[in-house]
Amino acid sequence: MYSLINGVLEDHISMADRGLAYGDGLFETLRVIDGSPTLLDSHLARLHRGCERLGLDLEQGLLREEALALCKTAGTGDQVLKIIVTRASLGRGYRSNTRQTNRYLDLSLYAADRQTMLVGCAVCLSEVRLALQPLLAGIKHLNRLEQVLAATELPAGYQEGLMQDMQGHMIEGIRSNLFIIEKGHFMTPDLSQSGVSGVMRALILQIQSVEVKQLTLSEVLSADEVFVCNSVFGIYPVTRIDADGQVLARFKVGPVTRTCQDQLAKLTGIGR
Amino acid sequence: MYSLINGVLEDHISMADRGLAYGDGLFETLRVIDGSPTLLDSHLARLHRGCERLGLDLEQGLLREEALALCKTAGTGDQVLKIIVTRASLGRGYRSNTRQTNRYLDLSLYAADRQTMLVGCAVCLSEVRLALQPLLAGIKHLNRLEQVLAATELPAGYQEGLMQDMQGHMIEGIRSNLFIIEKGHFMTPDLSQSGVSGVMRALILQIQSVEVKQLTLSEVLSADEVFVCNSVFGIYPVTRIDADGQVLARFKVGPVTRTCQDQLAKLTGIGR
Repeated sequence: MYSLINGVLEDHISMADRGLAYGDGLFETLRVIDGSPTLLDSHLARLHRGCERLGLDLEQGLLREEALALCKTAGTGDQVLKIIVTRASLGRGYRSNTRQTNRYLDLSLYAADRQTMLVGCAVCLSEVRLALQPLLAGIKHLNRLEQVLAATELPAGYQEGLMQDMQGHMIEGIRSNLFIIEKGHFMTPDLSQSGVSGVMRALILQIQSVEVKQLTLSEVLSADEVFVCNSVFGIYPVTRIDADGQVLARFKVGPVTRTCQDQLAKLTGIGR
Repeated sequence: MYSLINGVLEDHISMADRGLAYGDGLFETLRVIDGSPTLLDSHLARLHRGCERLGLDLEQGLLREEALALCKTAGTGDQVLKIIVTRASLGRGYRSNTRQTNRYLDLSLYAADRQTMLVGCAVCLSEVRLALQPLLAGIKHLNRLEQVLAATELPAGYQEGLMQDMQGHMIEGIRSNLFIIEKGHFMTPDLSQSGVSGVMRALILQIQSVEVKQLTLSEVLSADEVFVCNSVFGIYPVTRIDADGQVLARFKVGPVTRTCQDQLAKLTGIGR
């Protein structure tokens, strides 16, 4: 629909951009409902943590204004706002002597999938393992080839893939975070070595008592309830986990997951 | 100087580019001497291997023509040609159903550093460790935040940093490959788990008998000669390896390194 580049209505960027050259930057993807970006300040807070990690400065107030202005053009209905922040380019080479950034914003239509929110989805264990890199873990940087490969290799018919790290720990969905519930007790993987610390995950950590821990595949398979979440689609219950065309486990859409969906709908509007 | 985007004289790309969004692509950086790109076919061959790994198709003949045409505009002297190939964008999300690619070429001036080629340079052990990811190792993809962080943290006064992987194996320089010589015997790190398999490294493997192996820091520190290489600057002898401001080892610019420089100068023109 509309794009803003450093505050200007424009949709092309310089070929010298360091986001393109090296993935030297960060991004956020927000659900926009009736012209209003949900959880904007949480997304800006994560962006700020990413900027600190990569050594970037961000004019956060300005970005916030631009995001709100762009979303106002959306009218009613569902959209997705994508924010990209890249390190300004001052010449060739990995090294850069600047902390200055570019701000790219883009708004596009989104078709909410209420069916999957309701009845859940089958997910598949990805064969792509996440590398361990604590310097980049948790933040939403632009180096996403692992996710691209995992998403591209995902067999047809699956909404989402579950990713393990190189040591076999369960980490996340390709585009979501993972929660399991065992006897009413919430657990979610530790993301200090790999994975993206999602804004919806952070919100669930605020409203529920959740144990953040190293999670094994067998713990996930034996859980009472399993769901994946992100800040665009909310919560998708997981009804089956497959690998190599074999069913590893089946789950019912349980009452704890349903309650959590209701809480998030009240707080964010997603899934209402 | 000049840029070509899919064959057209242009220097701005779509904000929806998957190279920007996810680093979903590859690049090459070539030395251009008097309008002629050095080792072009070796670079195209590596690009082809990268495309196979990422599931991308490339119109290689067309790219070759565009590269030669762009370099012809350069006239005499030294330039650098950068080639970027990204997966075509068909919409939002990690998953893509296309193998089609965009071709971006850019030519810029280069100032050869003959002094460093002659007298060598001090390098510093980087504190940034490379993650182990065999799916991405060896190819020159666009996910380069590890190199950006390493280059940005490199203390002033160092031309290059040496990078280890998470297990402490020596892998490469931030923008170069590493060779050591012990009693006339060449060794270079195995790059099956991390690192970039450089075109200049490949050429040296062709003209010398080189042992490719897991290399420890102590093997590097006790070597007779050490050098780093890439296809833009050629070979820089390493005269000192430091870490945390301490000198770990000193090296003379030895006869084997010198002979190797001479051979490459004859074959490529770099350093002549």
